[in-house]
Amino acid sequence: MDNFSFYNPTRIEFGKDKEQLIGQILAEHGIRKVLLTYGSERIKRDGLFATVGKSLDKHGISFIECGGIVSNPVLSKVREAISLAREHKVEAVLSVGGGSVLDSSKAIAAGTLYQGEVWDLFLRKAPIASALPVFAILTLAATGSEMNNGAVVTNEATKEKFAIGSVHTFPKVSIVNPALMQTVSRDYLVYSAADIIAHSIEGYFTATVQPRVQSRLVESVISTVIENTEVLLAEPHDYNARAEFAWASTLALNGITYAGTSGFGYPNHMIEHSLSALFNVPHGAGLSVVMPAWMKWYQGRNPAQFDRFAQQVFGLKTGAEGIAALEKWFDKIGTPTRLSQLGITEAQLPATVDNVLGNAAWFGLADLYTRDVVTDILKRAL
Amino acid sequence: MDNFSFYNPTRIEFGKDKEQLIGQILAEHGIRKVLLTYGSERIKRDGLFATVGKSLDKHGISFIECGGIVSNPVLSKVREAISLAREHKVEAVLSVGGGSVLDSSKAIAAGTLYQGEVWDLFLRKAPIASALPVFAILTLAATGSEMNNGAVVTNEATKEKFAIGSVHTFPKVSIVNPALMQTVSRDYLVYSAADIIAHSIEGYFTATVQPRVQSRLVESVISTVIENTEVLLAEPHDYNARAEFAWASTLALNGITYAGTSGFGYPNHMIEHSLSALFNVPHGAGLSVVMPAWMKWYQGRNPAQFDRFAQQVFGLKTGAEGIAALEKWFDKIGTPTRLSQLGITEAQLPATVDNVLGNAAWFGLADLYTRDVVTDILKRAL
Repeated sequence: MDNFSFYNPTRIEFGKDKEQLIGQILAEHGIRKVLLTYGSERIKRDGLFATVGKSLDKHGISFIECGGIVSNPVLSKVREAISLAREHKVEAVLSVGGGSVLDSSKAIAAGTLYQGEVWDLFLRKAPIASALPVFAILTLAATGSEMNNGAVVTNEATKEKFAIGSVHTFPKVSIVNPALMQTVSRDYLVYSAADIIAHSIEGYFTATVQPRVQSRLVESVISTVIENTEVLLAEPHDYNARAEFAWASTLALNGITYAGTSGFGYPNHMIEHSLSALFNVPHGAGLSVVMPAWMKWYQGRNPAQFDRFAQQVFGLKTGAEGIAALEKWFDKIGTPTRLSQLGITEAQLPATVDNVLGNAAWFGLADLYTRDVVTDILKRAL
Repeated sequence: MDNFSFYNPTRIEFGKDKEQLIGQILAEHGIRKVLLTYGSERIKRDGLFATVGKSLDKHGISFIECGGIVSNPVLSKVREAISLAREHKVEAVLSVGGGSVLDSSKAIAAGTLYQGEVWDLFLRKAPIASALPVFAILTLAATGSEMNNGAVVTNEATKEKFAIGSVHTFPKVSIVNPALMQTVSRDYLVYSAADIIAHSIEGYFTATVQPRVQSRLVESVISTVIENTEVLLAEPHDYNARAEFAWASTLALNGITYAGTSGFGYPNHMIEHSLSALFNVPHGAGLSVVMPAWMKWYQGRNPAQFDRFAQQVFGLKTGAEGIAALEKWFDKIGTPTRLSQLGITEAQLPATVDNVLGNAAWFGLADLYTRDVVTDILKRAL
């Protein structure tokens, strides 16, 4: 087990009706004016926006709206929101949505207080020295962003999808009400399942130090996701399954399962970020395509852990059987496992590989993931 | 899954040599003078005290010593330390030791800023409105106190062993260096294993709402404790086993495994606290006696979970087999499973039951744990 620091000050308010507490929570933190960020107008149709507005009103908190944040959120929108936040002198950012809205909100929170160009923070040209406090009401469980300090944004101009993270970008409070997730589409449910599994396996397979206690926690998360995705596909309104799915999503990336591990990378994310940046495919859909291909390529580097995965998660024997079972499970739940299902052809591979290689340095994986290797992996996913 | 709030702001600094950071960490928090609490003089013989002193000196932090805190820490010592803390106007409490020292330190931290009698906080006559910041260097992994806000102290005069907990009593930073635990005696290692397992099973078996994801996490913790206790009994200097054991200990009671569960009690602790209060038996030794007896008594109330325990932890089939396996394992590692091994006789049962009944109201378990029930459980442990 490697040395580590663990610090995660985010307060999670989990459960039914918790969104009604938002005004009170902001007031407790002394906040009087927020930038309210969201994605589509769905939150206006389904009543969540009204609930939030009412709670804010009750506590005398005013808000400036910033809607229209898209999946694979983009830098131009972050810049627009930073202007709004500055113009109206908001004291906090309130994210109402899924991971894309929350990631954008963290970038907005850091960018508002940064004097320079916000993308510099993503390029690591400057550290994040401060940020507006971020509060969240989560409407989709997938990214884990509700209980970590990371944020991923795409620069549309440069086709770069990069991340930031700092002690200043942990949400102060995240409200996770699984009932708000009952209207998530079938597609986004299965993409989310793939995303959570990806967050789990990146460290699990690639860490050079991977304590068994942590492997057990990761397997607990993956088993929970598999079990509850199946329940939810049959019965989208099963509250308990939504709740277990949501908590597993939080656990997968709140640092607990990564404590004491080291030497790991995020190769599946590195490759997928290019699919999202170039072809705007949903992140989870890209991941379910990349993972089986990557696993087949990577397996020989850590055969014991792949055997363990097969045994603990699927009750099978060999690593190859485990990979096949995961791919089959992705097929079964209806998340893609082939580039062709994303509309990506062999002719587009060279440009895709170029983009991945552009990510490789940023992800610290340039040595291992050469042009030949990335091409090999992506060809397995055709 | 029930509604919950999760908030745990303790920063964990885990790993080799981390104790050398203590001066720097205190300085970061603006601390200039601390009450340094500890137990026996062992830390002076083994060099830890010198290491800490050097690190404090380097950062210009002065300290007042308060040693001699015993296992099953006592109120009189807490009062003595509060006087010292007030007299010297310390700004923080630095705990160097195991759970007893750390629990005492939390009580000292809260008591120093409370104008009344500190035991009132334990009797819930007054809320904990503030506390000095607490920092810890952990030398024994068992209680989980390093990453939660709880503290258990015995009032020797009244023979009451009660707890406090508040948002103000989370340690700010806890340093957990498994290498410092290599000199823990064989006895205290196995008592610690029993303690961690007790923290794990109290909720696991008694919660009326126990999400499967949380059951999986608990089983991960218990399996890790069993596996690594065996490694450590064979090879006390196996650093990785110490580390996995220590992290499992933290996970067992940092709130993660209890999130979303509800309706649970701490019946094994309720009973054991009386054994410690009356006969001063080590907490973990008392727990390994109480647990098998309690499990046999309780099993019929939650048979499915006992079957699950047998299957997931021991690869057995029935709940009864699982209980027998745990008892056998306690015997194997050498932690007691019978009251007689603690020197407690049948003649002492009535007085013991009286004391347990005195705890029952405090633990909120008076309805279920009547005189007959507690007698029944303790007789099974004779």
